[in-house]
Formats: sequence, structure tokens, C-alpha cells
Amino acid sequence: MKNNDLIQLAKQEYQDKTLIKQRLDDYYLKEQTKNGLKDLEKIKAYLPGKYQLLGMRRGFVIAHLDLEPILELMANGEEFTVVSGLNPSSPLHFGHKNLFDLLIELQNFGANIHIPITNDESYLDDKTNSLKESREKAFNEVIPSILSFGFEQGRTKLYALSDYPQIYNLAMLISKHVSLSQLETVFGKESLNNVGQIFYRGSVQLAQILLPQLPEFGGPKHTLIPVGIDQHPYILLARDVAKKLGMIPPSELVIKFQQSLLNPEEKMSGSKPNTAIYLSDDEETIKKKINRAYTGSVSVLSVHQELGGIPEICSVFSLLNNNHPDDEFIINLYQRYEKGELGMQELKKIATDFVTQEVKKYQNKQKNIKQFILEKPLRSFL
Amino acid sequence: MKNNDLIQLAKQEYQDKTLIKQRLDDYYLKEQTKNGLKDLEKIKAYLPGKYQLLGMRRGFVIAHLDLEPILELMANGEEFTVVSGLNPSSPLHFGHKNLFDLLIELQNFGANIHIPITNDESYLDDKTNSLKESREKAFNEVIPSILSFGFEQGRTKLYALSDYPQIYNLAMLISKHVSLSQLETVFGKESLNNVGQIFYRGSVQLAQILLPQLPEFGGPKHTLIPVGIDQHPYILLARDVAKKLGMIPPSELVIKFQQSLLNPEEKMSGSKPNTAIYLSDDEETIKKKINRAYTGSVSVLSVHQELGGIPEICSVFSLLNNNHPDDEFIINLYQRYEKGELGMQELKKIATDFVTQEVKKYQNKQKNIKQFILEKPLRSFL
Repeated sequence: MKNNDLIQLAKQEYQDKTLIKQRLDDYYLKEQTKNGLKDLEKIKAYLPGKYQLLGMRRGFVIAHLDLEPILELMANGEEFTVVSGLNPSSPLHFGHKNLFDLLIELQNFGANIHIPITNDESYLDDKTNSLKESREKAFNEVIPSILSFGFEQGRTKLYALSDYPQIYNLAMLISKHVSLSQLETVFGKESLNNVGQIFYRGSVQLAQILLPQLPEFGGPKHTLIPVGIDQHPYILLARDVAKKLGMIPPSELVIKFQQSLLNPEEKMSGSKPNTAIYLSDDEETIKKKINRAYTGSVSVLSVHQELGGIPEICSVFSLLNNNHPDDEFIINLYQRYEKGELGMQELKKIATDFVTQEVKKYQNKQKNIKQFILEKPLRSFL
Repeated sequence: MKNNDLIQLAKQEYQDKTLIKQRLDDYYLKEQTKNGLKDLEKIKAYLPGKYQLLGMRRGFVIAHLDLEPILELMANGEEFTVVSGLNPSSPLHFGHKNLFDLLIELQNFGANIHIPITNDESYLDDKTNSLKESREKAFNEVIPSILSFGFEQGRTKLYALSDYPQIYNLAMLISKHVSLSQLETVFGKESLNNVGQIFYRGSVQLAQILLPQLPEFGGPKHTLIPVGIDQHPYILLARDVAKKLGMIPPSELVIKFQQSLLNPEEKMSGSKPNTAIYLSDDEETIKKKINRAYTGSVSVLSVHQELGGIPEICSVFSLLNNNHPDDEFIINLYQRYEKGELGMQELKKIATDFVTQEVKKYQNKQKNIKQFILEKPLRSFL
């Protein structure tokens, strides 16, 4: 192929990437104002810098519902409660890391944290072969991984659904207040195949969200639920049920998915190893995955330098943007990237070094944690 | 009204009662051979007398599914397991007594008995105001009542669903194997209003039936489930799920409802006091209820004597038939009744005496039992 042809192709590539960015912007703009959600710009405008969470500054916390009372509690140094469930169907990856870093940030602002490990959901949605396997994964892999993030003892409640069956009492209580037709409207019939999925989505999920408001946990209180954009319906349902039960409707924080390493329009997925960097990956694997990752830059350097890059759709940049603690460093990187001054070789090197270092820190902590964990004997029927 | 008119009216009354008997016979004949059920005549023909349960001899155990393996275990003096749930929405009445007497009979033949107290169902079906109230009823009234029947300790497992939430783990396991459309086919959409009813009928109910086959209870085994004719769909569903889980499909025994005191085509109902004799009724109340009860005899004595009575639709006779231990006494009563030799005054007197005596026996036992029961503290959120 002649040089000119390559340049034409690269320019076309740039157009394509611009379109992808546009599609993503449109998608989030539409979603983040849907069904009562508000975008975060107004809040960010008057929120003192120290209360701006990393995700707000970096643009991956994109919308909220009823966040104001939580911010007031944060500002007054008062307690509030955050609930964030985890489906233990795969080892933790950088998508989970974003979320847990956010939880730790919130805990530093005074949050009590509830982390339900939804091994029953993994089973119902066919993400594990059996309830027993889902429990084993939860206890052998997922719980030690979570503990490695350094949650504060005494202000963190962690439970696997199968091992805290009392939660199902609350689910039964709630289940009477949710009708099948209501559920079908919220979720669509296609995700409600079996009786368990109906009960899970219409009740058990809500029980996790509302549990902190039971008398056992101090009664009605402000709670904050960070969710992916596709989980907004749960919050609407939970707010509805909370009112019926005399509880305070939970507040919501919507988080952009950590994008797949291969496609900015898909999310990082634990069941597709090439889309994700696991917290268990070794240096060599990280290097390989980042090297072949999708970027916001075209394949011909001169065209990149001429037109610039598109950091917003770059999976390599997003790893830095969503995790690196230094704002100035990220802003500088972004600007150089956008102008075409930053080459992909350099960016990938920076990202590989940073990600490797983060993973190593995490793995060292995990090693220490694992020594403290006595594995629970598994009941025979689970 | 002239005497002749009265006689004509009484003859018409007899015709009406004959029609009622016919309708009931037709109904049970149709139901008892439906969907794989078999009537009991064939089995009764070769079953040695001592294995014929009271309900078989008296005709209120009317059909079965797969009873043969249970009879074999009975004949060999080997263990088998019977599951019979109880909805604790009302105090116990003679409809319950029939069932518990049957369970005691089966226990004498070697049965282990599981009695789930389905307080969650009472709540979901709006038979109590709250889950908490349903638990209180279960512990304060229903459980002491059941214990008064004299179940054998060590071979009887009794649990209130709310207080044995581990059962919901099994329900979650089962729930994946039951689809909504399957459930709607079996029960009809009208009894599946809220998410809880769907989970209860499609899963929790089956969990109660299959619990004895878990490794904790010794693994797969023959089980027998006595049910009212309207509960046959549960058994079909349970047999289906049992096969999927590598368990033995449960056997079924179908029992006629204890008829209402007011209408032979309706069942005795705890929520309608005039239809039922409660085990807590006093002598005066029993007398009053029996005196105004619906009978199989016409209102003019001479016509009764001429045409005879219809014991099968008589609520007073059924109290004796379903509970009195003496076969010859009952046969004699039946024959005299049918021929018109037995007057209603006499029958009501016999029934009142017998029922009063039974209730007193039961109430004395219950008084003793209650002294031994330490009421469970109620958790605040239930």
C-alpha cells in the first residue's frame, strides 16, 4: 500500500473514532438525565474541592439522584451508609477496583459500607454452575480480594447471601409490595425467566439496599447506592418500596462502566479475559493486554500528530484516568494526548508501569489478608 | 302452611340434597383421577386391614399418586417421611385435626414427620397483617396446638419458615428450575399477584416438600405428602423438580376437605367461625354450632323416615365419620341414617358429646404443653 493510501485510511480511522466518541457522549447524555436522574455538573459547581470524589473529577461518576442529603452528612462529618453489592462470578478486575476505590473514598468521608456478595444472583443468572460453586468462589477468592482494599473493620458489613439467609426474611417482607407487572415494566420480561430471577430482582436485590434501615442497623437513615447506569431501575423500585415501609428512599450515584480493553462501547467483563485486567494478572500479562488494547489514536503517527487523539474512548488512558491519584498528571496527559503530542508507545508504557504497580500493591495486601482467613466449611447442600 | 305442603317441600328438599350429593360425587370422581392421580379402591382391595388408614376406611382419603413404595415401607416397618405444612392464619379447627390425626397414624407406622409452619404464606396471601403478626400467631397459638397432638420427639421436625431461613437457600436453588410460564400454567395467573407469591408457590413450597431429601436429612428418600385436592399441582411441580435434582419424586395422598358446618360444598374455614369447630371452642359453642349445622336429613321427620337421609353430605355425620375411632359404630350409624331410622336430634346429641369430649382431651393436653413452652423473643423486624 502506498504511503498516501495509509494516510487516507488513518484519516478515515480518525473519523470513525470521532463517531464512536459522539455515540458514547449521546448515550450517556441521554441516560444520565433519564427517569429523574440529574447530571453532576450543578453539584460540582458549588461543592468544595475536598468533597469532589475522584470519580467526579475524572468524569466517570456521571449522575445522581438525591445526592444532596449525603453531601450534607459528608460535609458535617456525620455517618451515612453506602451499599454496593458484588456478583462473585469472576475474579476482581479494574472495573471492580474503580468501585472499591470509590467505596474507600466514601468510607474516609464517614460512610458505613455494606457489601453483599450476591452469589445467589450468580447462580440464578447461570454465571456459575451451582450455588455451591458460587459460595466457594465467594469465600475463596472474592472476599479475600475485597478485604485487600483496606475497608475499616467495624464500619463495614460484608456478607454472602447464602450465608446470611436472614436477608430472605426481609425479601419476603418486601416481596408483597412488588407486583409482577411492575417488575416487568421496570426490567422487561427477558431478564425474568425463572422464578428465582423474579424474586431476586423484585425482592432480594431491594432487601440488600434497604437492610441498613432496619432497626437492627439503627433504623431509617440516609443511604447511598453507587450503580452502573443499567441498574437505575433497581433504585427507582427500591425508593418506591422504601416509602411503603416508612424508610428513607436511598440516594443514587451513577458510574460509567470501566470500558473493555478491546471496545470502548462495551464494558470490561470478568468472563472475557481479553477485555479486562484482573487484579490477579502478572506483569507479563498486563503488558501484553495493554499493548494490544484499543486506543483513541490512529495507526499512522504523522496523522495522530496532525489530528490529535481522542482520550475519551481510549481504554489505556481510561486505566490511568480512573485510577491515578494525581489530577495534574492526568490533565497534562489528557492535553498532550488530545493534541497528538503524546504517542501511544509512551502512553502504553506509562499505563503498564502504573497498572503493574497498582496490581502488585494489591497482590501484596491480598497475600497478607489470605493468611488471616480461615476458610469456612461448606455446608453439604450448598 | 298445610301439612301436605310441608311434606311436598320436604320431598323437594330431599331431591335437592340428592343433587348436591351427586354434584359432590361427580366433582371428586373427576378430580381424583385427574393428572395422574389414582383412586384408592385398587389399593384398598389388597391392602391388609391393619394398614388401612382411618381416612381410607372412612372415605375421606380419596386418591393417591405413587403410594405403593410408601405402603411397602410401612409393611416392612421401615422409615419414611411425611411432609405436611400448616398455614398459621387461624386457630386450629376440625379440618386440621383430621390431618394431624392422619399424621399421628402415619407416625405410628414409622413415619418421620416434617411440619413447616408457613407463616410467610399467611403474610403473602394477606391472611395476617404483617410477617411479625404471622410469627407471633405461629409461636403463641399454632405450635403449642400442634404439639398437643402428641408427635414423637426426635421423629418430628417442626419449623416456622421465618425462623428457619436456611430453607430459602434451598428455595433459591430450586427457583432456577421453575419458569414463570410453567408456574402460570400450573396455578393460573390469578394466584400469582406479587413477587412473593410467585416465589412462594414456585419455590418455597417445593423447598418444604424436598427438604427431607437433602444430605442433612439423610439424602434422597421416599416421602409422602398429604394434600387437599386443590394442592395437586404443587405435587406435580415438586415431582418434576425432584427429578431435576436427583431426588425421589414425592408420593401423594389426597384428602377430602372437612366440609363447612353450613354447606357441604364448601370447606371448613378458620376465618369463618360459623363454618368451623375450633379446638379452642367451649362446650356451649360446640353445642350451638352443631345444632344449627347443615345435615343430610330433610326438615319433616316423617319424610326423613320415609325417604331416609344422606349421610355423605351431612356436616354433623362427617364430624363423627372423620374422627370417631370405632368402625362398627360408624357403619351402624351410617346405615340407620341412610334408612331414616336415625333422627337428627339423636345424631346431633351423639356428635356434640363426641366432639366436646375430643376437644376437652385436646385442651387438657394443650394446657400441659403450654407450660413447657418458653416463648421465643421476637426479632424486631419481623
